[in-house]
Amino acid sequence: MVRHGKSLGLVETQYVTFAHPPDELELEGGGKLGPITLAYETYGKLNNRCSNAILITHALSGDAHAAGFHEGDKDPGWWDNMIGPGKAFDTDKYFVICSNVLGGCKGSTGPSSINPKTGRPYGLDFPIMTIKDIVHAQKHLVDHLGIDKLLAVAGGSMGGMQVLQWVASYAERLAAAIPIATTASHSPQQIAFNEVGRQAIMADPNWNGGDYYGKELPEKGLSVARMVGHITYMSDESMNDKFGRRFKDTKQPFKFAADFEVEGYLQHRGSNFIKRFDPNTYLYITKAIDYFDLSNGKGLVSMLSGVKARFLLIAFKSDWLYPTYQVQEIARACKRAGVDATYCELSSNYGHDAFLVEVEEQTHLVKHFLERVTKERAAHA
Amino acid sequence: MVRHGKSLGLVETQYVTFAHPPDELELEGGGKLGPITLAYETYGKLNNRCSNAILITHALSGDAHAAGFHEGDKDPGWWDNMIGPGKAFDTDKYFVICSNVLGGCKGSTGPSSINPKTGRPYGLDFPIMTIKDIVHAQKHLVDHLGIDKLLAVAGGSMGGMQVLQWVASYAERLAAAIPIATTASHSPQQIAFNEVGRQAIMADPNWNGGDYYGKELPEKGLSVARMVGHITYMSDESMNDKFGRRFKDTKQPFKFAADFEVEGYLQHRGSNFIKRFDPNTYLYITKAIDYFDLSNGKGLVSMLSGVKARFLLIAFKSDWLYPTYQVQEIARACKRAGVDATYCELSSNYGHDAFLVEVEEQTHLVKHFLERVTKERAAHA
Repeated sequence: MVRHGKSLGLVETQYVTFAHPPDELELEGGGKLGPITLAYETYGKLNNRCSNAILITHALSGDAHAAGFHEGDKDPGWWDNMIGPGKAFDTDKYFVICSNVLGGCKGSTGPSSINPKTGRPYGLDFPIMTIKDIVHAQKHLVDHLGIDKLLAVAGGSMGGMQVLQWVASYAERLAAAIPIATTASHSPQQIAFNEVGRQAIMADPNWNGGDYYGKELPEKGLSVARMVGHITYMSDESMNDKFGRRFKDTKQPFKFAADFEVEGYLQHRGSNFIKRFDPNTYLYITKAIDYFDLSNGKGLVSMLSGVKARFLLIAFKSDWLYPTYQVQEIARACKRAGVDATYCELSSNYGHDAFLVEVEEQTHLVKHFLERVTKERAAHA
Repeated sequence: MVRHGKSLGLVETQYVTFAHPPDELELEGGGKLGPITLAYETYGKLNNRCSNAILITHALSGDAHAAGFHEGDKDPGWWDNMIGPGKAFDTDKYFVICSNVLGGCKGSTGPSSINPKTGRPYGLDFPIMTIKDIVHAQKHLVDHLGIDKLLAVAGGSMGGMQVLQWVASYAERLAAAIPIATTASHSPQQIAFNEVGRQAIMADPNWNGGDYYGKELPEKGLSVARMVGHITYMSDESMNDKFGRRFKDTKQPFKFAADFEVEGYLQHRGSNFIKRFDPNTYLYITKAIDYFDLSNGKGLVSMLSGVKARFLLIAFKSDWLYPTYQVQEIARACKRAGVDATYCELSSNYGHDAFLVEVEEQTHLVKHFLERVTKERAAHA
């Protein structure tokens, strides 16, 4: 079965620091940032014509480790079910790249990195950055790897925004775009959920204006932010299926401890998040997401006009964080702009998480789409 | 026009303390609580046969002040557009009662009340209480007012749960039930949103295990809880209509201040909530809501069998906090149990807030329903 493709086995994260020009990245908001390090992984082999490279872009809490196993780890990368030999992003055919975003906390330069000007972590001295800046940094990585034109850029959620921004910023550098479970811009409800997370972090006295490195961490604030996030990633149905109204078998240490399984699950997910995520990165990245607006004041159709890249757009019926109408809106704008776009709506119950877990149908769609794009590219070469 | 019925004018909150038996209330979870004070208001006049009394039950952040004006106040009570002369709950015809719930912070005994055993506020010494306990206390108020049988009990959201609990506990004490935008039990998603609010409050160091009275209040924690709440009360559409992606015209005092109007709105609503609401009450009442389960292990149909009260059930299409399927489930159980029930689904865009703002259609439905119930009651008397 397709979904049981072979594992990539052991993989390693690599790092590149752009120490010569572009020594510093010019940011959309003005100002410069540098030197910049990006953490990235690659799977499969780049062919001689450098025509089989696919960039995978990650979501809010993702990182460069998209597939395979790190030495000593039990769990594989975050999209391992989609990337590997014989899988949707077939590493027997394609050279797959994934990098931790600028502003991240998994090896790329972000607010927890050392500010060369002070010798201390940036904290809130880190500049406000945008999805455009994130993609700008990725473009330097793609240059560094010697790839002139990507076969595709693919990603879900915030990853999908990066895909769209690649089209907006560097349309000539990719043959295909696969935005999944995403939007051309955040609605006020989506901004509001992010703002709750930010307020929860900043309400934690340990946050201390972003200056908490080496001190007590704003663990409780980040935990609340993560709990809200998890609710929006699941659906009403998937929570019902997973938890129902079952009680936890627990001796309550105090009155308002978790009674219900769903409470215990969220608390566990929340309080563990500090082990792998930097609260300031949460602030910076959610702001970048909220600021993202593909239409850029010009309208989506105008932004997409003249784009040659083909689109495969995927949405999930039970996803209420990025409702299907938002992906449909992009698909409609593609059609009106004369861009080749296929829109697929899958009927998963998993809510927004579907892009991470609905492997079979996504594999089917992505495999055939990539084969078609590869053929067309060969025909035009 | 119906919605512009006259105002009740000035009204006053009254208080009753149950100082003789029932001196203490026996609680569903075991233990006793007392003496208990309930704050309540009444509008209109009780007729000689005591047959025109309607109990209005309030939602999470509501109180006894449902209609009319308190001296010096600019804003009327929380359901003033529905209660008054010529309005849905027509005070020219009916005697309308509304009381602050047990556990509340607007005059009824709750965690901020003085514990007679210690002379200090209860805080977390307040016992865990349920919707059944809340309704039990209300029943004592109804007894105190000399009303044997209510014409109706009506309320939205948590108010709707109290309506349902009245049917479950004291079916013979009401002729009609009007549960609006509510559920027979919380889904895990609904529990999860409440749990985020609780965790936000308890994450605030000022919460201090519930012992903050006379000290710094857990204002930031309560604010985050309220922000989450507000998102769930509105709909995707109503937030779009109200805020869009408009930016606030603001000089940012620091980097992660509110950029978007929706952020400013939520922060304002959140940070002001401490002025009128007690964080411990938020904990106790949300737990009561989460515990509520009308089926009580027996199934809804069995719980409703033999009930003589007529039901008017109202749901709103864009309400995603209490989705229409939950109200439909109650309506279906009524039908199967042989209970007279009318289910109305209104097509408001306002989300859960619709029960507070969609006056016209609700007025139409409630007015006719109450007239029918009044006639039937007179015919059977």
